[in-house]
Amino acid sequence: MIVTIIGAAGYTGGMLLRILMNHPKVSLTDVVPVSASHAGQPVDVAHPDLVGTGLVFADAMPSNCDVIFLCTGHGKAAEWMAKHDVGDAIVIDLSADHRLHPEWVYGLPEVHRDRIRTSKRIANPGCFATCIELGLLRLGEHGQLGESVVVHATTGSTGAGQAPSETTHFSWRANNLSVYKPFTHQHLAEIEQVLGMRPIFIPLRGAFPRGILMSAVVKSKAPAERVREHYRERFADHPFVHIVDDLPDVKRAVGTNNVFIGVDNHDGNVLVVSVLDNLLKGASGQAVQNMNLACGFDETAGLHLMGVAY
Amino acid sequence: MIVTIIGAAGYTGGMLLRILMNHPKVSLTDVVPVSASHAGQPVDVAHPDLVGTGLVFADAMPSNCDVIFLCTGHGKAAEWMAKHDVGDAIVIDLSADHRLHPEWVYGLPEVHRDRIRTSKRIANPGCFATCIELGLLRLGEHGQLGESVVVHATTGSTGAGQAPSETTHFSWRANNLSVYKPFTHQHLAEIEQVLGMRPIFIPLRGAFPRGILMSAVVKSKAPAERVREHYRERFADHPFVHIVDDLPDVKRAVGTNNVFIGVDNHDGNVLVVSVLDNLLKGASGQAVQNMNLACGFDETAGLHLMGVAY
Amino acid sequence: MIVTIIGAAGYTGGMLLRILMNHPKVSLTDVVPVSASHAGQPVDVAHPDLVGTGLVFADAMPSNCDVIFLCTGHGKAAEWMAKHDVGDAIVIDLSADHRLHPEWVYGLPEVHRDRIRTSKRIANPGCFATCIELGLLRLGEHGQLGESVVVHATTGSTGAGQAPSETTHFSWRANNLSVYKPFTHQHLAEIEQVLGMRPIFIPLRGAFPRGILMSAVVKSKAPAERVREHYRERFADHPFVHIVDDLPDVKRAVGTNNVFIGVDNHDGNVLVVSVLDNLLKGASGQAVQNMNLACGFDETAGLHLMGVAY
Amino acid sequence: MIVTIIGAAGYTGGMLLRILMNHPKVSLTDVVPVSASHAGQPVDVAHPDLVGTGLVFADAMPSNCDVIFLCTGHGKAAEWMAKHDVGDAIVIDLSADHRLHPEWVYGLPEVHRDRIRTSKRIANPGCFATCIELGLLRLGEHGQLGESVVVHATTGSTGAGQAPSETTHFSWRANNLSVYKPFTHQHLAEIEQVLGMRPIFIPLRGAFPRGILMSAVVKSKAPAERVREHYRERFADHPFVHIVDDLPDVKRAVGTNNVFIGVDNHDGNVLVVSVLDNLLKGASGQAVQNMNLACGFDETAGLHLMGVAY
Repeated sequence: MIVTIIGAAGYTGGMLLRILMNHPKVSLTDVVPVSASHAGQPVDVAHPDLVGTGLVFADAMPSNCDVIFLCTGHGKAAEWMAKHDVGDAIVIDLSADHRLHPEWVYGLPEVHRDRIRTSKRIANPGCFATCIELGLLRLGEHGQLGESVVVHATTGSTGAGQAPSETTHFSWRANNLSVYKPFTHQHLAEIEQVLGMRPIFIPLRGAFPRGILMSAVVKSKAPAERVREHYRERFADHPFVHIVDDLPDVKRAVGTNNVFIGVDNHDGNVLVVSVLDNLLKGASGQAVQNMNLACGFDETAGLHLMGVAY
Repeated sequence: MIVTIIGAAGYTGGMLLRILMNHPKVSLTDVVPVSASHAGQPVDVAHPDLVGTGLVFADAMPSNCDVIFLCTGHGKAAEWMAKHDVGDAIVIDLSADHRLHPEWVYGLPEVHRDRIRTSKRIANPGCFATCIELGLLRLGEHGQLGESVVVHATTGSTGAGQAPSETTHFSWRANNLSVYKPFTHQHLAEIEQVLGMRPIFIPLRGAFPRGILMSAVVKSKAPAERVREHYRERFADHPFVHIVDDLPDVKRAVGTNNVFIGVDNHDGNVLVVSVLDNLLKGASGQAVQNMNLACGFDETAGLHLMGVAY
Repeated sequence: MIVTIIGAAGYTGGMLLRILMNHPKVSLTDVVPVSASHAGQPVDVAHPDLVGTGLVFADAMPSNCDVIFLCTGHGKAAEWMAKHDVGDAIVIDLSADHRLHPEWVYGLPEVHRDRIRTSKRIANPGCFATCIELGLLRLGEHGQLGESVVVHATTGSTGAGQAPSETTHFSWRANNLSVYKPFTHQHLAEIEQVLGMRPIFIPLRGAFPRGILMSAVVKSKAPAERVREHYRERFADHPFVHIVDDLPDVKRAVGTNNVFIGVDNHDGNVLVVSVLDNLLKGASGQAVQNMNLACGFDETAGLHLMGVAY
Repeated sequence: MIVTIIGAAGYTGGMLLRILMNHPKVSLTDVVPVSASHAGQPVDVAHPDLVGTGLVFADAMPSNCDVIFLCTGHGKAAEWMAKHDVGDAIVIDLSADHRLHPEWVYGLPEVHRDRIRTSKRIANPGCFATCIELGLLRLGEHGQLGESVVVHATTGSTGAGQAPSETTHFSWRANNLSVYKPFTHQHLAEIEQVLGMRPIFIPLRGAFPRGILMSAVVKSKAPAERVREHYRERFADHPFVHIVDDLPDVKRAVGTNNVFIGVDNHDGNVLVVSVLDNLLKGASGQAVQNMNLACGFDETAGLHLMGVAY
């Protein structure tokens, strides 16, 4: 099976490489990392931890791809598709370009698993979107989200991509916390598509490189234990979603493809907290999960990742 | 003027010492740092940056105090008051013990400045409480907070005090973010006293040592510019509250006694973001501000502090 | 194969569990995590990321162990050995207790691989020791270390263990750097045993949770390229040691069992920089590497770990 | 007294503004912040914590300057001098351009205080240079540095300036440590000029925004207590240098103009550790100290800064 990664020198491309190196159904020699900026260089020039793989960045995809991951910037993936004949390949687009496109499946396995299994065009969800959607899915499906749910979610700096900027400068971001793009974050459209309503979303930049923590308060008289039970039923056969008895900290998920969801309640309000790794379940891990489904592999193949823990 | 600090070896006592060392109305030789645990030792044993002051921790307050700061743990300040005759001294309690007490003034100068000026018993507000109250005060005073405002606020690790614990362990807290005490944080009572309503308060622990950032969404059709104008009028003669045109990051306030408040709005909702340094405007800086008022000094004396900036 | 971890609730015990969960030669149901403090509780009480394993802490080891990892504190492992009959089991001690013991093999595979393969008593090296020994081994073996090599090495906070203390308090350690135990660190004896000389060792505490970076300057007129070549020859058949052309940053190794070594030279001096993850190659990863060797498995089994990268 | 800052929108220009705002001999209305990139904008556009000053960036210096601070990039200060007639003004250059220039005084008050007092051309030392020079000065002056002292020094990210780059990207730098420019750092020439020898200098990038910690081991049989005594004598009348009995951590100096120096010894070797804030004693604080001397003010005027402490 030939797997191509378009844009393999960036964060999400690098994480895909790291996962596929140990994937039981993928041979490393059949992975083709494509990078216009690094063509001809060994992969460890861009990803210095990946020594000894022998992999070299290619300048174009081979003709016989089975799976293509698009890790190009937003806006570039649609352009790429217009210019290339992908034949019979499965295409998994990590950019935002096809998430609202009627001919692409929205690649959230906890909602569209069956469709993903038979699809060749999969739009991988956004990182914030995945965290918010999974955290509120059970409530949204039962019409319990009300009119104006306020969602706060704080992201690590890798969510902002590799290009340096003022707000990813270490001197600015270390020890800092800040709100950005309140009310209008670009993930709101896909969130609305999944939840059936548009929350009031306040995104924040956190002083950590990896992870997202979402918290939302919803009107509901249900005791936390009952909400947890409903969530557990909802996600019972979804291997990466874990309903926990406490409120999860973000580092619990970092390094893994897991989502942890905790619930508390008080006096007619329910608090939901969900956490994930923005580069794994929020990007490359979920992309491999989608590949597994679309290829008929075990959904968790290659995704038994050791968490960073500390 | 003799100034005594009870509990001078901890975070807030240390910050008081650092401020008073440069206070134009206080002579360093008239500052008495009291610490049961460190009595007889130079202050730089507990605060190694404070070299060369000649100050030594005392085991008890002198008899002729003009101002007494209580930096004892919560619960201990009331005990201390019961056991000591403070005579005619001004007492400023940084603990939670007297914040709801009818005979003490709640030391938030932006609300009670005139009463503080003539008071000898001042209960210094909590750090979260100060950030939330100042952020929402103008709305609360005009009955615009509605029934169920959800407030998120993330604190630095110094908010948890000096005693090491699991969640202040560097290996746990670095790169992390977590919710704790949702709905039931102990500052809610004083917040309700000031705002006239009890918000739904979700506190979080951030991966930074200093600062608090609060964000809250309130139903209101007022454009952000008008809200800002109302805030500017409300705080026009309050030197430490700054209404800004953007949304402030938390590090902007660290190292100073300032509060920065930013406002945005969208489609019937107003977002308020406020930031401060939990050890300064959230504790020792505000305590000195209260001392200044109660002693008839300029409100800002000794509080022209250089921010950390980066 | 029954594998027991004595002291499985701590950092190194937890990392062993995380590795063994995905080890191709170990069945999760045959792993027995022993913890006096947590006996009877699910492992995710101590390690919240390890949900869904079904593992429960035991209060004692089973009678039929094949491999025993000792993750007890220093001083406790020798006590434990005195009190228990381990029968025919392979014992791998992660504490310092047996590193100088004549009947135990010092478990540094890059030096003692053949002896480890046939041994049942393996003393796992210290984290600083591993980083310094591997960084300087080639020079030490050829008598090129001279009389007084100065070695600096900075460790992450997990190196200090799980018990909270002043210097692992987030409020102290964040943004900080400090020297401790200069000249007299307890790993010097084992380092001397391996290198044949005792360096001047200056350990530092860094503001990061994971990793060690060592740097040392050695008198030598050899050009860097030649030194690199010698190192490459020396470690050619050691899968976890990577000689790189630049100077490695510590994060390159975090999350993996790898050691990266870089070399530079100038005007008669050679600089060596080596990095590793103190909890993996510096502790639990190396312990599994030793288990693999002692059990006749592939040396890298279960150790194809994805680096944290960012 | 008119004080002009050329390049006032950067880190060191901003720190100068923050200090001068509270300087007893400088009126804020007589400070002219010049910035080509920000001319016409209020200073809080570049330095958001500096609200309410009324200061606006100018596009050129006024004609009647008494003191000019050059905070332009390296290479640009000499160009600036060639193009401008500074008349009778005192010029303090924070760039590297004049540090070896025979007509400029090297502005290290602990060495050249008397010359600075009468000079109008002062080249402010580099941040690494100041930390290393003050740490080793007493030994250098007594010929005790030997042939090949190895100096390690780790800097915060603000040392790399404001322009974002790969190694100041938060995603790269957080939790990281790395060596750069070993043996050849550009501060070596000025260090040699002060110490009379050229150390082997290994600079490192630390995971903190502010501060430098230097450590160096020197051959000497002198007990630490005697070395400390010599240092104390040497710096007895220098108000910002503090010889301490322990080994100082870097955060002790952050936020202040202080240098802390600690000493230990063992078996014929002496360890010296020195720490400072790279933006204060390593740049803008020292620049104001030089201004104080050149203007005949108290050396410490405006420099009683509160340390960040935590």
